[in-house]
Amino acid sequence: MSAQEREMIQVEEAWRRIEAKAVPLPPRQAALLEALGCILAQDIFAAEDVPAVPSSTMDGFAVLAADGSTRRRVVAEQRAGLALGLRLEPETAVRIMTGAPLPEGADAVVPVEEVRGEGDFIVVEGPVRQGQYVRARGSDIAAGQLLLRAGTELGPAELGLLAAVGLTHVPVHPWPRVALITTGDEVVPVECAPAPGQVRNSNAVALQAALLQLGLQPTMLRHVPDDLEQTEEALLAAASVADVILTSGGVSMGERDRVRDALNRLGQVHFSRVAVRPGKPLTFASIGATLVFAVPGNPVSSLVSFELFVRPALRRMAGHRRLFRPQVMARLEHPIRHEPDRTEFQRAIVQKREDGYWARTTGPQSSSRLLSLVGANALLRLPAGVAEFPHGAAVSALLVDQPEVP
Amino acid sequence: MSAQEREMIQVEEAWRRIEAKAVPLPPRQAALLEALGCILAQDIFAAEDVPAVPSSTMDGFAVLAADGSTRRRVVAEQRAGLALGLRLEPETAVRIMTGAPLPEGADAVVPVEEVRGEGDFIVVEGPVRQGQYVRARGSDIAAGQLLLRAGTELGPAELGLLAAVGLTHVPVHPWPRVALITTGDEVVPVECAPAPGQVRNSNAVALQAALLQLGLQPTMLRHVPDDLEQTEEALLAAASVADVILTSGGVSMGERDRVRDALNRLGQVHFSRVAVRPGKPLTFASIGATLVFAVPGNPVSSLVSFELFVRPALRRMAGHRRLFRPQVMARLEHPIRHEPDRTEFQRAIVQKREDGYWARTTGPQSSSRLLSLVGANALLRLPAGVAEFPHGAAVSALLVDQPEVP
Repeated sequence: MSAQEREMIQVEEAWRRIEAKAVPLPPRQAALLEALGCILAQDIFAAEDVPAVPSSTMDGFAVLAADGSTRRRVVAEQRAGLALGLRLEPETAVRIMTGAPLPEGADAVVPVEEVRGEGDFIVVEGPVRQGQYVRARGSDIAAGQLLLRAGTELGPAELGLLAAVGLTHVPVHPWPRVALITTGDEVVPVECAPAPGQVRNSNAVALQAALLQLGLQPTMLRHVPDDLEQTEEALLAAASVADVILTSGGVSMGERDRVRDALNRLGQVHFSRVAVRPGKPLTFASIGATLVFAVPGNPVSSLVSFELFVRPALRRMAGHRRLFRPQVMARLEHPIRHEPDRTEFQRAIVQKREDGYWARTTGPQSSSRLLSLVGANALLRLPAGVAEFPHGAAVSALLVDQPEVP
Repeated sequence: MSAQEREMIQVEEAWRRIEAKAVPLPPRQAALLEALGCILAQDIFAAEDVPAVPSSTMDGFAVLAADGSTRRRVVAEQRAGLALGLRLEPETAVRIMTGAPLPEGADAVVPVEEVRGEGDFIVVEGPVRQGQYVRARGSDIAAGQLLLRAGTELGPAELGLLAAVGLTHVPVHPWPRVALITTGDEVVPVECAPAPGQVRNSNAVALQAALLQLGLQPTMLRHVPDDLEQTEEALLAAASVADVILTSGGVSMGERDRVRDALNRLGQVHFSRVAVRPGKPLTFASIGATLVFAVPGNPVSSLVSFELFVRPALRRMAGHRRLFRPQVMARLEHPIRHEPDRTEFQRAIVQKREDGYWARTTGPQSSSRLLSLVGANALLRLPAGVAEFPHGAAVSALLVDQPEVP
């Protein structure tokens, strides 16, 4: 075992080493709907005015305000979408629909509700103000204007805006391609009945779901037994197609922990023990330009390691700046004891009350007990060095979902 | 125009009418990963114990604690996943891996770190406690136990849990199938150059993106001109394949507003005017069992109507109980004036500071100006009847994204 392997680092140092390697991926052009949730990689300026011509904001009649008439002859109809090439003369009116371009010579719209019809004529009693009910050229978007800054997350409104100015593709930081490799002799597919001592591959399902929540479909998905050759082969295959490899299992200190061995042979290990519970054997490595997150095989450890380290790393590679979950201080509804040798993240339910946030844990916190994650909306951070937290003590909580409301 | 069409209802009444119709869809079986983000439709009980046999939580040696030996002969190795059918005799030990089943006769595990090897023997200096480092049968999940309640949202941990007990399909409320129909003579595809008076179909992109954010791919996607026959044909085709039809445009009071006309002919209109800005012409109707949300064509109106009414309705149909965005009271960073005739939802940026939430609006609030939605993380609800809100006034804010942190 190398000195590096024995080294146990703190959570903050683990994140610093990840942050240094998990840098934003180079931009590529993406079609608008593919770009949903992605981060824009360049400033976008408007190439044109919206609207391109002055347009009506109401159904009504286009007129020249300055002609001062109360009675105008209706000479034509201007529907939305069909520019008739009309020129409006004083004391006439053109029937117009919402969104339709104003005829040349018109400078105001009188809504249909404010007009009385008299045969071919309309009568307008009140004054008509120049520009009323007219969207001026470029009033929504002016040509040359900065529309979206690099770094903006693209949601429905941002994509609609890009569509409005005719951009069908935009430069974004893509999400990393992720290969998922589960490991273990004892692991059988979910649809199989496990023999005594075997377990179903729940990690394959849970980690795929965690990736899907980010909008990521794994590029490669494989299970390998505890065999060094097969593990190396799978890691090399994954490194050739993925930006990130996520493995589960095989990183403890046992003889069969082939992922640890294979990473030492194939790549560079940046750390392989973190002073955290659950998740101590978390290993971070590189194989060429591909980053490897090797999370422990216990179901809770794998999901909590994903939440604490892998998810923020994937977000950072995708250009996001807000990497972590919101954090609040919550008071404990009941006393908590923990092993003070490492920082622990206990699964909890945080409630938002009149007097602030309150937290209760989700029962036994064994790292094999997935039920401890069910219904949890927070991870309570219990620092090392303190064994007991009394009722009412304030602890830091990472909100992985919205707080409960009583 | 019917009396019903003229009726303008309040936001709360609009939601009551929607809520009465948009009821949870009947459950269907979904594969685990398809069920991500869905709501479980039945209680799930565990059919078996996990672990099915007592298992080691450490790499080490399985022993019989009561034999009281300090020196035990190592007779075999028990790897994870291979139950050897061994029976452990007193004063012997079986080498064991994390997760491996304990041999019969063993009742404790001594971690490898606490053992000294002497040829075929191991020496353990300290006492060995019965049950140490053993996961008892059923300690993570006990057969017959309630695992997940009906109504639970299925995330990675819940899906992992279902996988662990061998369920490959679960009964969930499916997301509704949604058909998206955009309308308007003046609307051209995004990739086309608009002639004077024409606009690009940004709503098709923005509304698809809003559906995709919920995890919904539209079942049907179509654009129709302002033509009654084509509008009716599209609505009928959509009603035959979708639970929900979402249309944009064609619901104002103009002559060309064919969606309104078609809905009156084909189905039942539940309301067609809401005292809200933007979004007054929002129309809610049924064609047979299919619900129709006809949102106005202005880009901001369509997205805000989606956010306020359609998104919660779709969530309710999918069995969700938390339908609305979180709501906070925010103080205004600047005075706001608004037309007090209707409730207005202004687009804003809410910041969470030491002394609470503060809000500023995103500039001009014209319902055609998509830039008013860009970067907005909240909709400020300005009640009807009050025209001016001074600096520091507290208003209700719907948080559509996380609040800014200064």
